[in-house]
Amino acid sequence: MKLLEPLVINGMRVPNRVMVPAMVTRLSGEDGFVTQAISDRYVRYAQGEVGLIVVEAMAIHGSNAGPLLRIGEDKFIPGLKEMNARIHGTSDSKVVPQLIHFMKISKSGWRQTVDMLSIEEIERIVEQFGQAAARAREAGFDGIELHNAHGYTLASFVSSANKRTDEYGGTTLENRLRLIGRVMESVRRYVGDDFPVGIRYLADEFVREGYTIEDARLIGLRMAQLGADYLSLSVGGKFEDAVHTPGHVLHAYSGYSGDRCMPGAKYPPALHLAYAEQIRAFVRGKGYDVPIIAAGKLSDPRVAEEALVSGKLDMVAIARGLLADPDWVRKVRLGALDRIVECDYCNVCKQLDGAHMPVTCFLWPKGAMQAPAADDAAAAPNWPEGNAGITVKEGPNGLTLKWKKAQGSPTYYDVYRADDEGEMRVVDGVKTTMFTDSGLLGGMSYRYYVRACDATGHASAPSEVVHYTPPLPSAAVARAETIGVA
Amino acid sequence: MKLLEPLVINGMRVPNRVMVPAMVTRLSGEDGFVTQAISDRYVRYAQGEVGLIVVEAMAIHGSNAGPLLRIGEDKFIPGLKEMNARIHGTSDSKVVPQLIHFMKISKSGWRQTVDMLSIEEIERIVEQFGQAAARAREAGFDGIELHNAHGYTLASFVSSANKRTDEYGGTTLENRLRLIGRVMESVRRYVGDDFPVGIRYLADEFVREGYTIEDARLIGLRMAQLGADYLSLSVGGKFEDAVHTPGHVLHAYSGYSGDRCMPGAKYPPALHLAYAEQIRAFVRGKGYDVPIIAAGKLSDPRVAEEALVSGKLDMVAIARGLLADPDWVRKVRLGALDRIVECDYCNVCKQLDGAHMPVTCFLWPKGAMQAPAADDAAAAPNWPEGNAGITVKEGPNGLTLKWKKAQGSPTYYDVYRADDEGEMRVVDGVKTTMFTDSGLLGGMSYRYYVRACDATGHASAPSEVVHYTPPLPSAAVARAETIGVA
Repeated sequence: MKLLEPLVINGMRVPNRVMVPAMVTRLSGEDGFVTQAISDRYVRYAQGEVGLIVVEAMAIHGSNAGPLLRIGEDKFIPGLKEMNARIHGTSDSKVVPQLIHFMKISKSGWRQTVDMLSIEEIERIVEQFGQAAARAREAGFDGIELHNAHGYTLASFVSSANKRTDEYGGTTLENRLRLIGRVMESVRRYVGDDFPVGIRYLADEFVREGYTIEDARLIGLRMAQLGADYLSLSVGGKFEDAVHTPGHVLHAYSGYSGDRCMPGAKYPPALHLAYAEQIRAFVRGKGYDVPIIAAGKLSDPRVAEEALVSGKLDMVAIARGLLADPDWVRKVRLGALDRIVECDYCNVCKQLDGAHMPVTCFLWPKGAMQAPAADDAAAAPNWPEGNAGITVKEGPNGLTLKWKKAQGSPTYYDVYRADDEGEMRVVDGVKTTMFTDSGLLGGMSYRYYVRACDATGHASAPSEVVHYTPPLPSAAVARAETIGVA
Repeated sequence: MKLLEPLVINGMRVPNRVMVPAMVTRLSGEDGFVTQAISDRYVRYAQGEVGLIVVEAMAIHGSNAGPLLRIGEDKFIPGLKEMNARIHGTSDSKVVPQLIHFMKISKSGWRQTVDMLSIEEIERIVEQFGQAAARAREAGFDGIELHNAHGYTLASFVSSANKRTDEYGGTTLENRLRLIGRVMESVRRYVGDDFPVGIRYLADEFVREGYTIEDARLIGLRMAQLGADYLSLSVGGKFEDAVHTPGHVLHAYSGYSGDRCMPGAKYPPALHLAYAEQIRAFVRGKGYDVPIIAAGKLSDPRVAEEALVSGKLDMVAIARGLLADPDWVRKVRLGALDRIVECDYCNVCKQLDGAHMPVTCFLWPKGAMQAPAADDAAAAPNWPEGNAGITVKEGPNGLTLKWKKAQGSPTYYDVYRADDEGEMRVVDGVKTTMFTDSGLLGGMSYRYYVRACDATGHASAPSEVVHYTPPLPSAAVARAETIGVA
């Protein structure tokens, strides 16, 4: 499988093509030091053999910003070093920190924008990125990633919403790209040419003032020209359309662009892959072979493999899917796709982040702060003779399925549905023995089964299949009779 | 060419595969009657041989809503009939009205939503659509189109943002689809089965609360089941993300979803074609051959033809491109692509609509309320020996090109640019002899020429070509030397 082939990035041998991109955990203390919980979180990905672990965004500056990691002073190095030693002692996984600079936001809904920064402040940012990169190297990271995405400082300069009018301003594309160029120079001065430096940036801002794929191709080329060792693509996550909840600081993922950034269940799989494909083709066409990595509902191993094999990407970034199951890569390697805890994109993790609570997965056992340890030998839950006793009932909110609790230790149930003659796919992962489907269309036929899963995704055989064909409404029936179909 | 092949829609022979979708003109009086200006606007499309003319949304109800057409009472029939007689007397173009119901909006930013409507009001809407359809038939239209798109009543029921909790509510997909089913039944009762009834709806709502392509495929299937004779796809244009300007009524196209609905110059061509392709494949796969029509930057004849030939669409909808040049189809038929007034997506037309002013095209002669009459024999403007005397100058806003006024009667100039070894493409249409390019990337090479165009798009030969290669910034130069490229 292409997914399991190694990739060498500026000397860093990543053992496979799977990255866990930066995800906030909200597990650090207010002081920004590595905690046991944070260290455990990232070691868990190493146990699962994730190729490239990107540790959550850590601030290169001194701003007080709640329980977020920091790398703005030397005092943060020992904790990071210890975490990296644990990660490297666990597997061949490589680990880089995402280095972030962000601006001020307030509970009033006010936020600082790039046009408010003085040239002195910009010079300080340039220097701080370099110094943080040096600390990252000292702390034993295998490389670094610059956070040039979402609503944060670097991305806000590159954005077409940049309102500055000077040489760092939104007046021209080159001016927008000036700061990231300065930052790259600074970083190379501090860590040299042989240290992997990736950049995360946006393939589309998904806000009215924002840029689209047209600029994103050029931005990608410039990142390559600047010597970025990989480009990791995201979309959206901007403050421009953030929804302010009175009394709370503005959250970058609360608007439509935030929805596109962490697309929920209503979005199709691989929904932003075409952007990655276009950027990759463009940058390759200009002679740069920088690896292109992208996120966006790629957690189905078949979808991820196809994206790699078809040359749309060089590595897949999977955030929520690897939060749900850090053993995803290991299970793919073992051919145990059936044991993967499948992310159903319920976005409880996103809601926890938005509520400033520790980020966990809904599918984990109740109260768990980390994904449970793999137990490959454990028996899966099951129903006697595979019969879950599913009942179906129509109601005002749709079709409700109920079933019996499985034997063993079921942690959650995966509900599968096939539409007409299509394939069975997970439509939801639930913790009760009930599921309501509100998205059915009369005239189609549906089949369901459920599987009972233990804490690490070990699933029972499929239960019995139940069928349901909601009726066509009278208007459609009348029409079908008139035109002689159906 | 596929573009020029006829398409029979429920007995209506559309002479080619080009539709001008409904565009507000703001040319009617406050009383909603057809004016000379409105009649002239649509006759102009017929002169240009547009296959299917969709007349701007006309209200089926009595609301007072400014200079918008109405069809809610019999008194509106004679004016519409006269307009249709003129259209039919001009060419083989077919003409349908877009029938709309909309809810109340106010200058305070408040708007009525579907959950505020009583069952009696819903029943009235069902009846009003039927009656309006009957009036349309009596007025000599060739069919009708139901406006089930953007921020209006029918689309707001189908939307996943529908907050009702009854049988017309957002609780299930079937409930959301109930009203359009009722409306289709009502319409068929009034006009029978042999009258073409198309539906316009959204392939993606592009708002946080909205549905995506996943639901849009099912919605398309239902429209087909209901006997829609064509499906015309749009996206966005919702009130949920509309930006309220104090003192003005809320405008449905002022937010991000409005930008997606009428995508400006920063978006790539054919940007929503993949949605149409998916919906068409899905509906065809279910056995329905209802023609699929879609809009979204398809005004380049080569792009439009390719969309048809590759089976992604059955007809292309071109709004702004046909506003710019109602003779688009005729010029394609004559092989005179070079004489088309090319829409540059400057969206001045969209701004005029937003400002509640008569909608015209920026490329038309100053003050013109209609596209100028074609004059195929007129000589194009030109420069002596084809030399426009282009000068280029770098400045804080990018590269500025200036050139000499052409001889003859230039109305506007098309600025063409090629990036590296790429094709020459129009990047802007300007009325002065100056253009500033703020989107260049250092390290790429650019070529430009200009063409002087008369009022109907008759263009001079390309001027001399000027070259410009903006320098790479120092950070990229340093990197290129280090890694030995460039």
